[in-house]
Order: sequence, then structure tokens, then C-alpha cells
Amino acid sequence: MKPSYGDEAPIAAPATAPAWSALSLVRLSGAGAVSRLSQRFSRPRALLNAAGNTIVHGWLVDAAARRIDETLVSVYRAPASYTGEESADISCHGGGATLRAVMGELFSSGFREALPGEFTLRAFLNGKLDLTRAESVMEIVGAKSEAGRANAIGRLSGVLLERLQAIQTRLVRALSETELNLDYSELDGVGVAGPDSRLPAEEAVEQTLQELDALAEQYACERLLSDGALIVIAGKPNAGKSSLFNLLIKEERSIVTEVPGTTRDWIESWIAFDGIPARLVDTAGLRPASDPVEQIGVRRSEELLGSADIALYLFDGTNLQSEDVRQSENLPRRADGAPAVIRIWNKADAAPHCPLPGCLPVSAKTGAGIGALCAELRAQLGALCSPTNSPSVGIGTPRQKELIDAARSALREALAMADRAAPLDLIAPSLREAIDALGAISGEVSTSDILDAMFSQFCVGK
Amino acid sequence: MKPSYGDEAPIAAPATAPAWSALSLVRLSGAGAVSRLSQRFSRPRALLNAAGNTIVHGWLVDAAARRIDETLVSVYRAPASYTGEESADISCHGGGATLRAVMGELFSSGFREALPGEFTLRAFLNGKLDLTRAESVMEIVGAKSEAGRANAIGRLSGVLLERLQAIQTRLVRALSETELNLDYSELDGVGVAGPDSRLPAEEAVEQTLQELDALAEQYACERLLSDGALIVIAGKPNAGKSSLFNLLIKEERSIVTEVPGTTRDWIESWIAFDGIPARLVDTAGLRPASDPVEQIGVRRSEELLGSADIALYLFDGTNLQSEDVRQSENLPRRADGAPAVIRIWNKADAAPHCPLPGCLPVSAKTGAGIGALCAELRAQLGALCSPTNSPSVGIGTPRQKELIDAARSALREALAMADRAAPLDLIAPSLREAIDALGAISGEVSTSDILDAMFSQFCVGK
Repeated sequence: MKPSYGDEAPIAAPATAPAWSALSLVRLSGAGAVSRLSQRFSRPRALLNAAGNTIVHGWLVDAAARRIDETLVSVYRAPASYTGEESADISCHGGGATLRAVMGELFSSGFREALPGEFTLRAFLNGKLDLTRAESVMEIVGAKSEAGRANAIGRLSGVLLERLQAIQTRLVRALSETELNLDYSELDGVGVAGPDSRLPAEEAVEQTLQELDALAEQYACERLLSDGALIVIAGKPNAGKSSLFNLLIKEERSIVTEVPGTTRDWIESWIAFDGIPARLVDTAGLRPASDPVEQIGVRRSEELLGSADIALYLFDGTNLQSEDVRQSENLPRRADGAPAVIRIWNKADAAPHCPLPGCLPVSAKTGAGIGALCAELRAQLGALCSPTNSPSVGIGTPRQKELIDAARSALREALAMADRAAPLDLIAPSLREAIDALGAISGEVSTSDILDAMFSQFCVGK
Repeated sequence: MKPSYGDEAPIAAPATAPAWSALSLVRLSGAGAVSRLSQRFSRPRALLNAAGNTIVHGWLVDAAARRIDETLVSVYRAPASYTGEESADISCHGGGATLRAVMGELFSSGFREALPGEFTLRAFLNGKLDLTRAESVMEIVGAKSEAGRANAIGRLSGVLLERLQAIQTRLVRALSETELNLDYSELDGVGVAGPDSRLPAEEAVEQTLQELDALAEQYACERLLSDGALIVIAGKPNAGKSSLFNLLIKEERSIVTEVPGTTRDWIESWIAFDGIPARLVDTAGLRPASDPVEQIGVRRSEELLGSADIALYLFDGTNLQSEDVRQSENLPRRADGAPAVIRIWNKADAAPHCPLPGCLPVSAKTGAGIGALCAELRAQLGALCSPTNSPSVGIGTPRQKELIDAARSALREALAMADRAAPLDLIAPSLREAIDALGAISGEVSTSDILDAMFSQFCVGK
């Protein structure tokens, strides 16, 4: 039987990255997890008798009692654990070979491999976290900047939940006033939101809509702070792309270690402009290629440009060709019109005059013009989002954004109907729809489909 | 003052990889570590009162009590900890931004960043581990195969230490017999290892030398199992290098996740042949390049070949040029004569006949000949080391190998002197030298220089 999120079997997964490091942490959760682990432990009684929130030292062993690794096991007793279930964290040595050996023993002793996000799903199902807090856990892990991390921590602390609950409470009050009027109006046969007897609490609904609009607007900025902007360097070979790349990462502090498991044929680094993280990518160039490896490189360059926020198009100042100008005007684009293109006139030391309008003269060789380029990048990123101006903690995930949008359109619908003096019994369902959408954000209203879709985007071990 | 390995200040370091993961683990150690941490903890009293080997839940906060991250802190009281000092492990959320924020708070509250291997150094200085065990910790982390990991675990369990101590004990006995004879012989004025009165316990010394020779021989195999072989694919562009690379990694299971933090302009993957791990690298090709990015690629290809164990040189069967033959015969080489070159006649589907001697016909397009190539790779790697034939746990690090070699040459010297019937008082110092070298392996005999050099090769957090 395929494991599913419904299944309550004891699960196991690494919670730390499977890379070169001093230690790895492996998480276990589920009824009987500790006694199951004790069958593969050099000190089974110590483990079985361990109180919650205590640590037991010993060797993980195989079925024939051969030593696999020296470990520290943290024991958690239900319900005082992350998931609310009996749990254990195994702190073992780092490195891929140890992790494979440890996981192998756990699976052979009856643990099932945890699905992505399954620990956090169990925490939600056991009432340990609402959905905004659960989602914030993955946002914290993926955050690319301090501002993005701090906002996610705000959501983990429940700030977003409180903000949404306040909005929801106001709407519920508006709905009950409407339904109350509905009851009365039925008595005398009126029940419309007319010019005099407008939608009860209409002002409250309008105010709520404004708040939700602000949350939706803030979202683009939150995503940029959390995921970072994508800046792609494009241009023909020999235009000086690599030199510019190296200059920029030297100029701005590199902020994020790379993620393991990626095999790339481009070079990238993370830099930050005024707190906005950006992934700077040096592409393979855009020339027509015959070599299959080069062809792959060119195709990837086009894909990267097609999802970039900003493109830096480099002209070779000493060798301008009409083809380059055409290429710079026909870069692959996103549906929303991005990337914004900054046209750079490189090798300005040798060819100081740029014949093209709106070009930024730069010399990747001497470093001249890099300051102006960084200022331009700062301005463009700042236009997308300014971390210092951003108000208090907002929404953080596409799922939350969709539900906020659903609530907004329901409220707009309600207000439009009220404007048309529609009967209150037609307006009330729209208010209820908005309330339900807000409830779904925290998980008050949820279905197993929604939960499966949401938690499957988590990383394993969370 | 620059921190040094001698310094006893409380130290802090991440012990898990700074990559995308559910959790990170940060280690603290040193007198007062727990009370210092309590100044940045939402529940200071709970932390201060925590018994050893217990876990405290709470928020890491900044100096203004703002929440940084929700954490679980494992408290260890001296001497019952890895280092033997008061210690704590902070389990916090994964991801680079959290790690930066957490480490920032720890440093601002007075923790010093741990030097590489400093936790394990403190464990050694506090008598928790001998040096063979300490070194095995890093070998476990870096092991690239199950056999390499299992041998390192054997060293961690003390198997190597026992083996060395047995050898050392035998030598100490031989030395005392020699010195005893020396004392007696001084009385009657002889004191030489003559044809009749040979070196006392000469047989024991010879047997010891054989054992040390076996250990030294086994070392090459241990390194291969632990670090893996390097196999580099070379040849001109369009020879089909990438296709062959992809075929080989599909044919053989990829075994190791890549290490973060590496920016590469080549593509690589780990594969295993009969338990021997190998890093397979697809290079940029060896053509003369004008583009600076390409030039870097070609230089790196040459460097990789110059440290490879095996090179796969691909000929384009449809386009053989004398230049390629010359290139295949003049590949960069290691001092020991490696790499062994396997000459591959690619595109054998289109050009079945190979005019060159010792060529392996392969079609990376149809897959023909890949089986024979894998068999050849297996044979060549098996000749370097066969994991199933390897005897019990041997030595694991270059440092240990150097000391074994020092002991071997001292013993050879002693036996040669005995053959020449040299006076026993000249032979005794050589025996003592061998004993000291063996003692240095476990750390019985050690200087702070040796310790600094050894532990600085560790990863931070260990």
C-alpha cells in the first residue's frame, strides 16, 4: 500500500541537509516510535525508560547488533512534541554514507519514510499549529533575506493569524447584522439594501476590503524579500559577462550558500541590494550553437531570462553589431512583461562613446561605471519592494494570496450588489464566502485535498 | 586577540550544512555556555535549572527580547558531554537566513566562532577521545562509500587503537629485552647483536614490521573506499562526452549528494562500481579556446585530468584526426603515472571499425558497448582496491600513514643494524623511535603543533 498523508504509521526522515557537515539530525514520529527505535539501539532499556525531553547516548546498531553510528537520541513523549505524537530526534554523524546507513536501519526496523511536510501536517492535525504557522515554517527555511525571515517568524508567532482573525471577526459581525436585518425585513416584506436602508455595516465591509487590498499589495514585496529577485546577465560571448559577474559579486556581499543537489551549467551567486536578496546569474550566452552541450546552455539561458526580474544586457563596446541590438530588444519575457532590461555598454575604457540610447557605460576591466550600475539595480529593485517601508507582517504564500483574493472578490461582489440595492438575502452568501476564505487561510475550514496539496510542497523532515 | 585552539572561551558553530533543510543544529561548548545562552532565551530560568541531557523548548531572542527563532535546546553538563565541557545544542529552523540570525545573536552575546575541529579537539584534551577516534569522526563525515564508512566506524569504536596498542606493547617488550641485555652486556663489555647473541626479540620486531607493512599497503585501498576514485571524461568537443556521461550515470546508481558551496563549470556525479565510489566528471573539452570563459574551462579540464585515477578519452569515430591521437597520448598526468587511460571509439554505430589499437568501441547514442566499458572500469578500479578482500580496520588518514611509515623505517633501520652486528645501545633508540611514532598516532605523544595542524582540517562544528 502506498503511504499517504492519512496513514498514522511511525515515520522517519533526515531533517538536515545531506551534505558534508559535522552532524545530521534524523526525525522520528508516531505511536511506538521509541520502542521501535530501541530494537536498533545499544541501550534499549535506557531508551524505553527515558522521560520526555531527555537525551540518551548510545550506538545505533543493525539487526545483528553491529555498530552503525554513535548517536544522541532526544526523546519526546506525546503530546509534548512538535507533532504531538511520541517522537525522537537522532543526532548522528554528518555525511551521505552515514545518513544512508542510518535511514536503511530505520526503514528495515519498520519506520516509513516521511512524506514532504508530514511532521508539520501531523502537528496541524494534532492541533499544535494553525495553517499560517505551519506554512511559515517552510517560509523560514527558504527565506533569502533577513526581512523575509523576520516576516515569516512573525507569522510563526501568530501575528498574521491575529490580523486575519480581527478582520474575520469584523466580517462575521457585519454578516450577523445583515442576517438580522434580513429576518426583520422579511417580516415587513422589504429586505433590500436601498438608498436609505443600505447594507448594514457597509462601512465595516468597505474597510475590510481596503485591508485585504493592502495585504494583497504587500504580498509581491514579501515574496521578493523571501525568495529574492532573479537578475540575469545576457549578451554575446566575449561581451565580458563573466568579468561583470565577478565585479558585481565582489562589490556586493554574497549572502546565501548554494543549495546542494543542483547540477548547473551556469554560474550564479546571491547578492543583496539594500536588504533585497537577488540571485545573480551569468549565462552561457545567446549565440546560435552547434555543439549539443552549448545548445543546452543557450536554451537554459533563454529559460532563465524568461523568468528573470531584471536582465543586464551587455554590448561589446569595441564590436557593436546590429544583431546585438536586435537581440537585446527581443529577449525572452515573462507573462507580466519582466525582465526590466538594463542595457550596458561594456569596454567603455576602450570605446567611451555609446551610440545607443539609454545605455549605461561600464568597464568590467577597470571597474568604471560599476557604482552607477549598482545604483540603477538598487533603484529598480527598490521600485519592486522597499523592505523598510513594508508594514507589519503580511501573507506569505501563494495559497494565502489566492484565498485573500477570493475574499476580496466576494466582498467587492457584496458591495456591488448593495449599490444596486439587491435584496440582502442575495448579499449575505457573498459575505459568508469571504469569511470562509479567510477561515481557510488558518485552516479552520479545510479539506484533505487542500492539506495534501499544501504539505506536499514542504521539504522532507519538516 | 585572535582566537586560538588553546583558548578556553565558550564557542559556537553550526554543526549541520547551511543549506535548504527542515532544521539546523548549532553547537555551543565551554564553561558558562548555558548561562550565556540563557541571556538570549525566552525562558532563562528553565535553561539555567535544566539538568544535563535534558531538552528545553523556547525562543531564541535578541538583546531587546525580540523573537529570533523557536528552538529546542539540548543541555549537557560537564563532564557528560561530547567535549567534556558544559555544552548545548540548539535545534533551530533550517535555511541560511535563520542560521545567520541565530549565529549573530550568539556572537553578540559573547560566544566565539569555533575553529574547525575545535569541539573534537576539546574532547581530546579532556580525555574523551584518543586521536584515532578523533580523526575517524571526520572520516565518517567524508566517507563516500559504505565500506569506507564502516571502516571509519571501526576506528571510532577503537578497533584501530587496540590493533596499534597490541603492536606497541610487543615493541615495548622488545625494547626492554634489548635494554636488559644492554645492562648485562655492559657488565661484561660486549653489548653487540652478534651472530650468536642476535638482537633480542628480533623475531618479534620482524613480525611487527610485517604488520605495519600490511597496514601501509591497506591504506591506499582505505583511501579509495573513503574518498572515491576520480574518473574524468576527456576528448574534443562533439566527441559525445556529455552523452557518455549521462549513459554512465544512468547505468550505475548515483550515490552521493553533492557538496554545497561549489561553483563549477564542469558537470559531475558520483557513481559506484562494486562498492568502490567514483566521481565521474564531464569536462569542458580540450580544444584551444579564445573565449576567456572557455579558457578557464580548458584549464580546469587539464587540472582534473592531472589528478584523475582513470581518464576516459573519447574519439569521434566519424571524424578521427591525428591531433586527437596525439592529445590522447599526452594527457596531463599525476606524479604516480595515473590516470590510466581507457581509449573509447565513440559513434561506433556510424563508424564500426576502429583503426587504433586498444580502443573500446562504444555508441553513446545507441548504448552499444557501455556494458563492456563498465566491465573495464570495474576491472581497473578492482585492481586498485577490492573492498571485500580488505582485512580488518586499518589506518585512515595521511597523518596516521606518515607515522606508520616513520615507525617502519625506524624498525628497518634497527634490523639492518642488528644484521651488521651493531652495538645494542645504537639499536635501542631506533626501537624507541618506532614506539614513539605509534604513540603519536593515538595521541599519547603529542605536541600542540601537531594538534593544531590536525584539527584545523576538520569541518567547523565538529
